[in-house]
Amino acid sequence: MRATLIYGAGDVRIEDVPDPVLQDPTDAIVRVVRSCICGSDVWPYGSRAATAEGGRIGHEFLGVVEDVGADVAGIRRGDLVVAPFVWADNTCDFCREGLQTSCRHGGLWARDGIDGGQGEAVRVPQAQGTLVKLPVGPDSALLPALLSLSDVFPTGHHCAVTAGVNPRTTVTVIGDGAVGLSAVLAAKRLGAEQIILMGRHKDRTDLGREFGATDVVAERGEEGVARVRELTGGDGTHTVLECVGLKPAIETAFGVVRDGGTVSRVGAPQYPDVPADFGVFSRNITLTGGVAPARAYIEQLLPDVLEGRVQPGKVFDRTVTLDEVPDGYRAMADRSALKVLIQP
Amino acid sequence: MRATLIYGAGDVRIEDVPDPVLQDPTDAIVRVVRSCICGSDVWPYGSRAATAEGGRIGHEFLGVVEDVGADVAGIRRGDLVVAPFVWADNTCDFCREGLQTSCRHGGLWARDGIDGGQGEAVRVPQAQGTLVKLPVGPDSALLPALLSLSDVFPTGHHCAVTAGVNPRTTVTVIGDGAVGLSAVLAAKRLGAEQIILMGRHKDRTDLGREFGATDVVAERGEEGVARVRELTGGDGTHTVLECVGLKPAIETAFGVVRDGGTVSRVGAPQYPDVPADFGVFSRNITLTGGVAPARAYIEQLLPDVLEGRVQPGKVFDRTVTLDEVPDGYRAMADRSALKVLIQP
Repeated sequence: MRATLIYGAGDVRIEDVPDPVLQDPTDAIVRVVRSCICGSDVWPYGSRAATAEGGRIGHEFLGVVEDVGADVAGIRRGDLVVAPFVWADNTCDFCREGLQTSCRHGGLWARDGIDGGQGEAVRVPQAQGTLVKLPVGPDSALLPALLSLSDVFPTGHHCAVTAGVNPRTTVTVIGDGAVGLSAVLAAKRLGAEQIILMGRHKDRTDLGREFGATDVVAERGEEGVARVRELTGGDGTHTVLECVGLKPAIETAFGVVRDGGTVSRVGAPQYPDVPADFGVFSRNITLTGGVAPARAYIEQLLPDVLEGRVQPGKVFDRTVTLDEVPDGYRAMADRSALKVLIQP
Repeated sequence: MRATLIYGAGDVRIEDVPDPVLQDPTDAIVRVVRSCICGSDVWPYGSRAATAEGGRIGHEFLGVVEDVGADVAGIRRGDLVVAPFVWADNTCDFCREGLQTSCRHGGLWARDGIDGGQGEAVRVPQAQGTLVKLPVGPDSALLPALLSLSDVFPTGHHCAVTAGVNPRTTVTVIGDGAVGLSAVLAAKRLGAEQIILMGRHKDRTDLGREFGATDVVAERGEEGVARVRELTGGDGTHTVLECVGLKPAIETAFGVVRDGGTVSRVGAPQYPDVPADFGVFSRNITLTGGVAPARAYIEQLLPDVLEGRVQPGKVFDRTVTLDEVPDGYRAMADRSALKVLIQP
């Protein structure tokens, strides 16, 4: 089959790789129907050291089950399924607590001999725990929205949930990328009435307004902090959803959070230290968030997606074939695309 | 009257200062019956730059009301009262949320013309909101325990509460100072069954065991982390109460916390950046805590103190007169005393 490999910064190729086959009785083989490129794929695309052999990439996909191992129940050939961006047995103590990203028998896609999502097919380990069956066919108009359940929408949701967003909390979302916009949608869905979106790409913040943002702040740094404080009577917001992962973003987060409030971060941090100094301490600010256990949220979010009450698929603004994936990376990297859907 | 002034590192003096008088109708004058020295007083005692004029110090006291302003209700001359270590109106929105440390009309003792606690008397601003009446006389044997409500016991309690300690959580407490031991007591009071105390002063960890610690780990750094993990099946504890404030302590905290768990810090951080890197992010660790709003907890903790169900006053292991306060600072700094009580 063909799949995407990354050889280093700016160097993504589509190549022939071995067809996946069942290896363990807990495996399934899934033919990919839709995949996509993640903001977190753009980090290695921007900076990864060149290697001779290349490595698989991609961790979001939905597809049709082609085969299942003897120990897989509840999933059968022909089912349309979505995979969360971390695979997990969904039965260990961490999984039962809703932290499938720390599963005792789970792991990451595109690592250690596991296929990536940006290819024609995937061997899925711990298939019974990992995959969620979708009650639509592979030609459904809902596929983009359903694919968003793999990562981007649950990631925004995780950010809002861990921050404690509810109808009584004010919210700032930092970042108008696909995760930031998904966080706006999640905050709105959880009942937040004031959602301030910090971002400066008008087409993106327009979608943010459609998703529920009540205010848009285009300014950054000190100016951005001042503007958010102005919009909140000087206090900042109870919750801040940091959806970027760069140090200036987390600095801004501490600047716009209300005393006693919570900053949640889901943008993979590209910095080793958090500037949570004595000032942050004295204001009793909580820092939470992390890699979203998407698996914990898929069933919860699915009904609203199926019934169209939320439309998280709107973050996809370009579709490519597998051969065009390198173009998709370029478009994500130069920000001409918000999020790229792959139709293999 | 006489009061304590700090002139710089290692230079604490008892001097004559003006007697406090009512300035605002919301003030009260309190004659100090007991005060004490805080671990956080030892930071400036260790490092403060020398000054010609000196500054007042001390933020924990209980005493007898001598006079009240016209707007102070519920507190009258002759009442024995305890003051939290931050004064507050106890009516603004932050106070109503239990965050009196961010009170819109509150502030710190021993700053900006406000008396410190380590003196003979104190003018108390926002007296009605700040002071809590105690139902015992000034000769009660409970005075040390009641004085601990001013700071050290609520600080340990805040650490445990914000970390989410309950009967189902395992706990590590980092630090065997008065705050760490108070955090052990608070965790036990909240029902925790496994409480691992990290500390290496046997007399202190012995008191920790009396307060409820089930295990003591004397090792530090990597060795200490390994030992806590060994005691918890390799996983670490759900909650970590960081009661030191130095960078190695917060590093250890992230090392001993279970995936999905919470680190709460109440040791005033002597570092600008928190080492909460991608590893901490990927494990979904929450960092919380901060300056404890002691005022929010005093009434809650008072019954257990009055009835002797908890004995937080045991952290005081030396008593000095006001004239001996400089000796008290030396004893705290060289760790020959755990916490020094002042009987003016």
